[in-house]
Amino acid sequence: MRKQLFTILLIAQAAAYPALAQTGEKLVSYVNPIIGTQKMGHVYPGATVPFGAVQLSPDTDTIPYEMNGKYNPDVYRYCAGYQYDDKTITGFSHTHFSGTGHSDLGDFLIMPTTGALQLNPGTANDPKSGYRSAFSHANEVAEPGYYKVKLDDHDITAELTASNRVGFHQYTFHKTQNAHIILDLMSGIYNYDNKNVWTFVRVVNDTLITGYRQTNGWARTRTVYFAMTFSKPIKQYGHRSYTSDVYRGFWRKFDVTQNFPEMAGRQLRAWFDFDTEEGEQIKIKFAISPVSQEGALANMRAEIPHWNFNQAKADAQSLWEKELNKIAIKTNSKEEKQNFYTAVYHTFLGPTTYMDTDGSYRGLDMNVHKANGFTNYTTFSLWDTYRALHPFFNVVQPKRNADMVQSMMAHYDQSVQKMLPVWSHYANENWCMIGYHSVSVIADAVVKGNAPFDANKALDACVATARYKKYDGLEYYMAMGYVPEDKNSSSVSKTLEYAYDDWAIAQMAQKLGRKDIYDEFIKRSAYWRNVYDASTGFMRPRMSDGSFRKEFDALKTHGQGFIEGNAWNYSLYVPQYPAEMIALMGGKKQFATHLDSLFTMHLPDEFFAETEDITRDGIIGNYVHGNEPSHHTAYLYNWTDQPWKTQERVRMILKKMYRPTPDGLGGNDDCGQMSAWYIFTTMGFYPVAPGSVEYSLGSPAVDAATIQLENGKTFAMEAKNQSDKNVYVQKVELNGKPLTKSVITHTDIMNGGKLTFYMGAKPNKKLYL
Amino acid sequence: MRKQLFTILLIAQAAAYPALAQTGEKLVSYVNPIIGTQKMGHVYPGATVPFGAVQLSPDTDTIPYEMNGKYNPDVYRYCAGYQYDDKTITGFSHTHFSGTGHSDLGDFLIMPTTGALQLNPGTANDPKSGYRSAFSHANEVAEPGYYKVKLDDHDITAELTASNRVGFHQYTFHKTQNAHIILDLMSGIYNYDNKNVWTFVRVVNDTLITGYRQTNGWARTRTVYFAMTFSKPIKQYGHRSYTSDVYRGFWRKFDVTQNFPEMAGRQLRAWFDFDTEEGEQIKIKFAISPVSQEGALANMRAEIPHWNFNQAKADAQSLWEKELNKIAIKTNSKEEKQNFYTAVYHTFLGPTTYMDTDGSYRGLDMNVHKANGFTNYTTFSLWDTYRALHPFFNVVQPKRNADMVQSMMAHYDQSVQKMLPVWSHYANENWCMIGYHSVSVIADAVVKGNAPFDANKALDACVATARYKKYDGLEYYMAMGYVPEDKNSSSVSKTLEYAYDDWAIAQMAQKLGRKDIYDEFIKRSAYWRNVYDASTGFMRPRMSDGSFRKEFDALKTHGQGFIEGNAWNYSLYVPQYPAEMIALMGGKKQFATHLDSLFTMHLPDEFFAETEDITRDGIIGNYVHGNEPSHHTAYLYNWTDQPWKTQERVRMILKKMYRPTPDGLGGNDDCGQMSAWYIFTTMGFYPVAPGSVEYSLGSPAVDAATIQLENGKTFAMEAKNQSDKNVYVQKVELNGKPLTKSVITHTDIMNGGKLTFYMGAKPNKKLYL
Repeated sequence: MRKQLFTILLIAQAAAYPALAQTGEKLVSYVNPIIGTQKMGHVYPGATVPFGAVQLSPDTDTIPYEMNGKYNPDVYRYCAGYQYDDKTITGFSHTHFSGTGHSDLGDFLIMPTTGALQLNPGTANDPKSGYRSAFSHANEVAEPGYYKVKLDDHDITAELTASNRVGFHQYTFHKTQNAHIILDLMSGIYNYDNKNVWTFVRVVNDTLITGYRQTNGWARTRTVYFAMTFSKPIKQYGHRSYTSDVYRGFWRKFDVTQNFPEMAGRQLRAWFDFDTEEGEQIKIKFAISPVSQEGALANMRAEIPHWNFNQAKADAQSLWEKELNKIAIKTNSKEEKQNFYTAVYHTFLGPTTYMDTDGSYRGLDMNVHKANGFTNYTTFSLWDTYRALHPFFNVVQPKRNADMVQSMMAHYDQSVQKMLPVWSHYANENWCMIGYHSVSVIADAVVKGNAPFDANKALDACVATARYKKYDGLEYYMAMGYVPEDKNSSSVSKTLEYAYDDWAIAQMAQKLGRKDIYDEFIKRSAYWRNVYDASTGFMRPRMSDGSFRKEFDALKTHGQGFIEGNAWNYSLYVPQYPAEMIALMGGKKQFATHLDSLFTMHLPDEFFAETEDITRDGIIGNYVHGNEPSHHTAYLYNWTDQPWKTQERVRMILKKMYRPTPDGLGGNDDCGQMSAWYIFTTMGFYPVAPGSVEYSLGSPAVDAATIQLENGKTFAMEAKNQSDKNVYVQKVELNGKPLTKSVITHTDIMNGGKLTFYMGAKPNKKLYL
Repeated sequence: MRKQLFTILLIAQAAAYPALAQTGEKLVSYVNPIIGTQKMGHVYPGATVPFGAVQLSPDTDTIPYEMNGKYNPDVYRYCAGYQYDDKTITGFSHTHFSGTGHSDLGDFLIMPTTGALQLNPGTANDPKSGYRSAFSHANEVAEPGYYKVKLDDHDITAELTASNRVGFHQYTFHKTQNAHIILDLMSGIYNYDNKNVWTFVRVVNDTLITGYRQTNGWARTRTVYFAMTFSKPIKQYGHRSYTSDVYRGFWRKFDVTQNFPEMAGRQLRAWFDFDTEEGEQIKIKFAISPVSQEGALANMRAEIPHWNFNQAKADAQSLWEKELNKIAIKTNSKEEKQNFYTAVYHTFLGPTTYMDTDGSYRGLDMNVHKANGFTNYTTFSLWDTYRALHPFFNVVQPKRNADMVQSMMAHYDQSVQKMLPVWSHYANENWCMIGYHSVSVIADAVVKGNAPFDANKALDACVATARYKKYDGLEYYMAMGYVPEDKNSSSVSKTLEYAYDDWAIAQMAQKLGRKDIYDEFIKRSAYWRNVYDASTGFMRPRMSDGSFRKEFDALKTHGQGFIEGNAWNYSLYVPQYPAEMIALMGGKKQFATHLDSLFTMHLPDEFFAETEDITRDGIIGNYVHGNEPSHHTAYLYNWTDQPWKTQERVRMILKKMYRPTPDGLGGNDDCGQMSAWYIFTTMGFYPVAPGSVEYSLGSPAVDAATIQLENGKTFAMEAKNQSDKNVYVQKVELNGKPLTKSVITHTDIMNGGKLTFYMGAKPNKKLYL
């Protein structure tokens, strides 16, 4: 009965909102993982599954971080291991961040080679000097869950796919008695001399190798365990150690370098040799675990118990197809579809699964924990992702987003500081960037009713986090109402973000009826006012004596009291109180003019050089889209008398910042935040202040979009008469009723329904007023 | 009913073998842990319980091993952390080996101080230059499970006790606002610059600290976790890091050095400050775990849930009293009692417990395992302990010995080489010394019927171990019948020991009816003949071309094809076939003369300098008792026509090598082997060839001894008319029946009964012939 009813409902919905995807159309075919791999996108092109623990992807260079000497700025280009302009591949490693502006990982680099055994990677200029290989984009295929490339120097076709915790390699060789698989345990991303803490490898039998590598980097104390199995027996093997600071003791009894089944040290590279026939494929399954070698082996056996590479690839792509199908769009532009589904793909790359198939994971306290009743995730780039990615998940991935909150709560439980995550990966708090935006993610989930967890305990965690005095000027902020620049740098950014976070806590407290908490934090949420300097019209660093700092340049970024944004951009960061901010800044008219200036002025090169993480394409005037603090900015016109300018600006940003080309991303994708902005904005609405149930309306860039909600309902958007020229909203209806404000709510979406925009080439300047 | 019967039996036995201990006599009072702490004994004086995981003991210096520069020979003196001649104590660390000649451990050194905070240990010459303190033996008390000392420089009385996995410190301070507890995570035994791999510490709250330290040393990959709790809240705390090679990243946000609850790096020292009143005691419970911090905390809560130091001390001493009571002796000599019970104490120090209270432990494969149905032990100094310690355990600790075999089998299961342990500690094979004497321990247990484990699987493990070609010349040994010196050094020692071990495997195979294995290994057991050089009358290194090596000096030790013994001593190492060896060496008469020479010749200083691990007192003539290969030698007279010389020699060795003084041990106690020799010999019998059920009779040195067997029976020895002069056996009876051979069997012991020696001042030269 039940099933029948469901079918009827689906038919009914199908009638109201016809499926937009064409019959047999594969959405994965629109995803191009190469988009953003050039310049500043910092995404990787390799194989992974949605929210997968393994990101098996080519690394095109091994750039030393040079910890003890000088910082090597080139390292930044390799945050994801791959740069499109490079001509060589050093190998395929199993863990990568997507779109970050600082990095780590690149664990367990595997490289198949032929000819004389070479254990050093060699140089990009002379790839034959090492194990690396020249390659050509002409021989490269990148799809969701699949990557293929010809390794020219070795005449090997490399193919990669993955399950959640297992990387599956398939290497096609020519006939040779010199086929090698290199396992480089020294290679890594953001690699400095002493990053490797310890390495341990066991050749269990002639097809199975297990071990682990422990590193000290962005994650201070990180160990990744592995189990690696070959499709055919190893002919011979060995390893070389590259440091002399390991105590050898009585291991000197053995020649441990050749065919000896146990390897340990700080800097190791291992090789495994094979004979191959013409066209013979050597396959490798490589599983990882945050807990143990046996955990990795169990993951492998659970996830890919066979040797059928094509089956594994089909399974991976089927997972992607299922996730991509959560949103169907209608557009005549193939490029728009590529942009859109690549953006959806990017948003579903993380946070990443961080537990074994049995739910075990190593926690922040370095104890092993079990995730009971939820999937434990890691890689929380929260300063970025609280803005649009987690709100996006509350729409299309509510179950996963709730699990992410539970993962953050587990982090809190394990934190000796009793703080929620700031920027955490692999059970390590790396403390990158500012604010305590976990509270925004949690508040957004609670306020939007997506809280199948102990919300009161979560609120307690938010409060404890927001009261941790030792954190980044918080002691001063709490005592004085702002962070004084002479006590703690980037003080304005911190003050503004703390105030927003505090507002989010207050919203959550209100929803939970916790009046004392609400009172405390609603008061703190107004502290943004304390750094507003009416004399300049900008937020401005204040000193502990109460005065504003004398030196001040609203165009400069460095050392001005801000981080990743100058005063022009950052001063607008009061998403919780746009109307109050606008009033303080001179009222709606003056503020609109101010915004116009932001988008139209010229940012001289000397100041551009100070913006981080973005290409010159990543700015419009002085508006910096490539950095997150401005992501809500274009929507602020909705709070002035000129909301049509939001419509104009967001379309301009979409066009300029998102293109289906290798250099198509104007800045770091930042774990999907840039892509989430794109998706919301393309569908015509955006969550300006997560923690509020409201979305601000913009200008949809596709003709229609249908979201399949997890509750079984469907929310549809239609943009009648939409085109590149018709960017202005003439009127808008929700379920057939005209909207008089530029707002829809989360309930409007989750109840299912239809949002209809009527578009035109000229602004309807009276709309929403 | 059952219980009543048992009581009756006990009474019956008590009547036959009256309890030798006086009423109210505490055997712990005869144990002096200071014995052997001077010179070469290498035992530690601190607090531990029988087979305990924690050995909480003072370290008197911190000697660098100087890995990268030159080896510092002084490090050897500090194998147990303590040297009696030293005038200062650097602190109290939680793990120590007993009597080894190479070392590791010394984990988690704690030092209480007063006055200005000093984080460096300072020098022995100027203890005030650091945290260390002068002390005096006059203010020192060492008992089983208890250690006390006055720290003169800080006016602190330090007291230590322990449970299995918890060290309990009690420090009595004067009134001060400058009381410090230093936790030095850099300090260690056999410490070289890069020994510390990683350290992680969390100040969970104001009384609880957890963490771990990972080292690379004799154990290549070792992590010990801890949980430490104070009896009163910390006033303030902090740490200092002593290396610059740790990536600090965004941790720079914090002043992590002061009152910050998370510490990590390679080289750390932490401090915890308190105010104290006059006479106030600060107590510390410090638990360790091989698995995790939470494992350590659970161990602490399970073992010492209270703060009553005296109770913990009483519990520890009661455990010792129970174990010591397994053997009661009768002697008028208090010194003999001190020697005897200190020897028993030393034999029960290890192997040490290596698992949490829930049975979890980290295995050789670095996975976490659970010991199901047995206690998992570590610290297997097998080249030493297979000789007498494990045979001793088969008499007085059969349950524990069987568990030790199970622990060795777990090691084998986890070994990627598929070998039983050689010298293993903390789930690491350190490969120290030679042979594969696990097989002797297992065979001895099986042959003696103490095998509540899968004996056939154990035999398979022995066989796999004995066939592992990569190990120490085994490939040549198997192919050629001996280890050629030009292929592998110490070749004679290896050949002789392999042949003995192979014989042990054959005995076990015979008992289990595995004829093919018996045939293979009984053949190998004769390979000792292949290194006998009739032209010199010594075992002598042979080359791969079959010739004996030309250069040969039977007095030299180094580079002569032997290890820890010259040809004079080592040539006698054929314990499995004494009669055959004697025949080959010229027959009984010539052999007895040869033995006489060994004991009476003078070993010139130039050759003595080459013997290792022993003092000049540790030799008699050229007989080196301080090194194990000679431990059966004095008993070899029993296979000649002059068994009375065995009686004479063993009494001479007992007198000379074992004295109840700080320098009372003539060589390294070697994890109890030296002490086990003492105990057997003092009771009048010795297991010349473990794997045989026979014990060879000597000359008992106490008037009587009664062993309480685990099977409820009692085996008693009485030595009528025994004295320092009456060292010769006139006759001997087993259960009243005269013995005609110098042999009793394990069954004779385990069935219970009485062995009566009749002693006299002159040899009965006809006895046993």
